[in-house]
Formats: sequence, structure tokens, C-alpha cells
Amino acid sequence: MEIKNFLHEQKELVEQALSRSMLRAAGQFSDHVDTMRYSLFAGGKRLRPILCLAAARMISQGKIRDEAVLPVACALECIHTYSLIHDDLPAMDNDELRRGKPTNHAVYGEAAAILAGDGLHCFAFDLLSNPDYGDIPPEARLRIIAVIARAAGPLGMVGGQYLDVTNEGREIPFELLRTIHRSKTGALITAAVLSGGIAAGASTEQQHQLTDYGNAVGLAFQIVDDILNVESTSEQLGKAAGSDAARGKATYPALFGLNKSKSMAADAVAAATFALDGFGSDAEPLRALARYIIQRST
Amino acid sequence: MEIKNFLHEQKELVEQALSRSMLRAAGQFSDHVDTMRYSLFAGGKRLRPILCLAAARMISQGKIRDEAVLPVACALECIHTYSLIHDDLPAMDNDELRRGKPTNHAVYGEAAAILAGDGLHCFAFDLLSNPDYGDIPPEARLRIIAVIARAAGPLGMVGGQYLDVTNEGREIPFELLRTIHRSKTGALITAAVLSGGIAAGASTEQQHQLTDYGNAVGLAFQIVDDILNVESTSEQLGKAAGSDAARGKATYPALFGLNKSKSMAADAVAAATFALDGFGSDAEPLRALARYIIQRST
Repeated sequence: MEIKNFLHEQKELVEQALSRSMLRAAGQFSDHVDTMRYSLFAGGKRLRPILCLAAARMISQGKIRDEAVLPVACALECIHTYSLIHDDLPAMDNDELRRGKPTNHAVYGEAAAILAGDGLHCFAFDLLSNPDYGDIPPEARLRIIAVIARAAGPLGMVGGQYLDVTNEGREIPFELLRTIHRSKTGALITAAVLSGGIAAGASTEQQHQLTDYGNAVGLAFQIVDDILNVESTSEQLGKAAGSDAARGKATYPALFGLNKSKSMAADAVAAATFALDGFGSDAEPLRALARYIIQRST
Repeated sequence: MEIKNFLHEQKELVEQALSRSMLRAAGQFSDHVDTMRYSLFAGGKRLRPILCLAAARMISQGKIRDEAVLPVACALECIHTYSLIHDDLPAMDNDELRRGKPTNHAVYGEAAAILAGDGLHCFAFDLLSNPDYGDIPPEARLRIIAVIARAAGPLGMVGGQYLDVTNEGREIPFELLRTIHRSKTGALITAAVLSGGIAAGASTEQQHQLTDYGNAVGLAFQIVDDILNVESTSEQLGKAAGSDAARGKATYPALFGLNKSKSMAADAVAAATFALDGFGSDAEPLRALARYIIQRST
């Protein structure tokens, strides 16, 4: 399959759904909603929503309607975007540029940016729970919320960001680096794949396979992110290149060197495709996505 | 009934439940969880959880087990606490004191405080959705999540805080002040009452009554908050008194004067008790809570 075309077409699908669901007529709250929309529509690969949709299609063997899963996919992107807005704040990574555009606080100021993040965070759970959106059965929906809340919370994404921020400039053991990567980036990627599967009625065994796939893809993604931060220019990345080294962040290239890091990323992709053994051609989009993770340049 | 004893006993119940549910063995994330616990256990009236529990008992005529509703009650307190941590940040209200103690960022720094808020925010939805907690039927649980996410999000609490922050120092019309109060404070108070009712299987008509009660109590609470900011000392409040006037915030006393504000608060309490007409003696705790709102001194 043509991964580039697939990604482009899926990105369009997600962006249209995001646009439809983003509180168009917010009355007195429309300025606030604009600050949320700014970051939500400032580019981005839409990787988590695309993984979610692909997992749902694979498990249902193409039978599930995209419309049923799109609110979950959009919620994942809202959570991812909120985390980027907060990560970029002066008190955190203090980044002025994200995806080639000024960061949220650079445009609206810190207070509004904190609230844009908070608004997107909460709105994700509105999308996941509100009967206006989607038509996944209540039990599956509740389980999806539990999976995403656990992955994005203090034992997942937020906890990982805490460890990342508080360990900046320190030499840390590999075990801690792995925890940071798994929690900060990996947990939400795994939750994206798993929640798509649950929406489509995945069995317990299938949920384990999706979790294995998600963990491996998340690891590959993070290693490649670390490599790109070393090898790319700021223009290619749309954000500051070389910033990890400048901040003394622990990364795969810093710990293992570039060559070993690249072979570790390739191993993780192999593990991801292996986890989908037995799904046949239905798994081709998820396999192609795993391969794309290490071919990407931004 | 003895409201003071009732409040004391209920506060204990909520704090024990919060303590039980707060991720005791968080391993590598325990420092982060400590920053969440610091603000969660820094005092507070626990008004939202107490309203939630009281509504559930009223609707079920005392039949529902507290244990079933406590995860919802705790989730409401997590959301309230996260909003206080973020409101206190230097970029927002820049408060160093809350409930007589240093604010979260004064203790842990800004980055950790932003993440303590994010962690509590997300953990609230974990408590609401995770099968480990409580035993409310899935449909009711999903509806509770929808109610709370809508109330706490961009069209509710977060949106209200945005309007509050961005209108500081400006003369604003009463209509906008009302929107700010309803969204920033009122929405989550109403959601607390309503979610307790839904947990106990409230009918549509009962849900309307609980919403009317919550809206009126929320209004009374906010007017009294404005009055206390004028009339109390910082020591009594445990936070900076007179800060609203110093910041040029629109408040009820600023718009209507103290006497008129007090009679408006009393009217709101009358409306709250009126909304519970027909519930008989089961409604006595909620009625006493409404009366307490305007008698409180902190």
C-alpha cells in the first residue's frame, strides 16, 4: 500500500472530524475556543487518531463505521495537543516554535495557553463520553475512557513529563529513560491503538496483541524522535533541532550512539509487525504505519 | 440537623476516600503523586463531594451505599483542586497562599505545579471510569462523565476562568459577570449535585430539580465568596483578602454593593430550597447545605 497517500487521506478525515466537533458556536466562550483551535489546527501528523482508526478497522475487518470511532480518534488528538501546549510553556520546555508556527503561549500569552491546554484536556473526555458523539456501546466507551485516562494521567503521560522535566541536565540510568519514554510518549500511543480495538469489540487476546503493537510502535517513535532531534535541521522539524543535547536531556543517541539507536528502532518496528501475526491483510495499514515510523523525516 | 457536625463527619468520609484512592504505590511516579497529594490534602471544605453524596442519598432515599458514589465525589474534588493549582499560578492569579498554606507552585515550582494540576485533572476521569472504583452501572457512569466533562471544560469551568483572567481590570456588564460565575464556579457545583443524583438513578424530572438546586447554590456560593473577599481578613480566609478589588475584578459587591449582594445571596438560597420541594425530609441535608453557604465565614 501507498503509505504516503494513506496518511494524507487519513489526516484529512481526522481534520474534518476535528473541525466538526470543535465547538463552533461557543458564544461568549468563542475567544477561548479559538485558542484551542489554534494549536489543534497548527499541523501535526495526526498519528494517534490514525492508529486508533486503523486498529478499529483491523479488528472489525473493515465493518465498523469511521464515524463511530472518530470521536475517540479526535479525543486522542485533543489530549496530545494539550500536552504539547503545556510542554512548550516557559516554565517547562520554553519553546517558541512548534510545527513551524509560534507556540500557543507565544500567540495568546501564558494564562490563555494554560487554559487552552486545560480546555482541550477536558474536552477530550466530553468527546469520549457525550451521547452526541459516536455510537460505541456504553461498556466499551467506559473502558476506552479508563484506558485513555490511565495512559494520559499521573502514571502515564503527565507522570512521564514530570520525570522528564525534573531530570533535565542529569545523567539518568537507562531504566529511568525507558520509563520516561514509555509513559510520556508510549502510553498514549498504545492507548490510541487499544481504544480503537476496544471500540471495534476486540477480544482480550486481541487487546493484548494491540498493546504489544502499540508499545513497540511507541518505542520506535520515541527513538526516531530522539534521532531526528540530532540529525535534522530546525527547518525540517518545525521546532528547535539539537534542543535535547542543549538541555542535557537523556536520549537514545546520547546513551547508545546513533547507529545503535537506529538498529534499536528497526528492532522495535519488527516487534510491532510481529505482534500483529495472524491478522493477515487486515493488519497491512498498521504494519505500514509501523514501517513509516522509522522512515519519517519530521 | 447540626450542620457543623454533619459537615465535619462528611469531610472525614471524603478525605478517607481521597486518601485511599490516591495512588499510594506509584513507584517512579511517587514524587509527582506527592505534588498532587500536597494540594489535595491542604484543607478545603470538600463542598462538591459532600453535595454529590447528599444528592445521591436523597434520590435513593438513603438506599445507595456511599462507597458506590465516593469515586465520583473524589473525582469532583480532584477537578476542583486542579483548577485551584492552575488558578494560583504566576501567569494567572499569582497567589502564594491558599487555605493558609503555600500554593503548589510556591512549594514545587511552576513546571511541577502545572503537571500536578494536569495529573489531578486526568486522574479524576480515571476515578470516574475505572472498573476498580465504585459500582455505578455503566450507562449512569458514562452520563456522569459527560456531565462533569461538560461542566469542567471550555464551555464551563475552564472557559469561565478564561473570561475571568482576560477581563481583569475591565468594567464588564452584569451579563458577562453572571456568565463567568455560572461557568467558573456554578457549573461544577451543579455537576456535583447532578452526578450524585444520576449515580442514584434520578429521573429526568429529578435531574431538572437537582440542576435548579445546584445552579442556585452555585450562585449563592459565588456571591458569598465575593462578599467574604471584601469583609474578611486574609487570616480568616487563608488566602489574600481584598484581592478582587485590588485586581479590579468584577464582583457582586462591586456591582451592587454589599447589602444588595447579601439579599441576592439569600434569595438564591431560597430558590435552592424551593427547587427541592416535594422531597420531604430526605432533602434536609441539601437544604441545610444551602443555608450553610451563606452562613460560612471562610
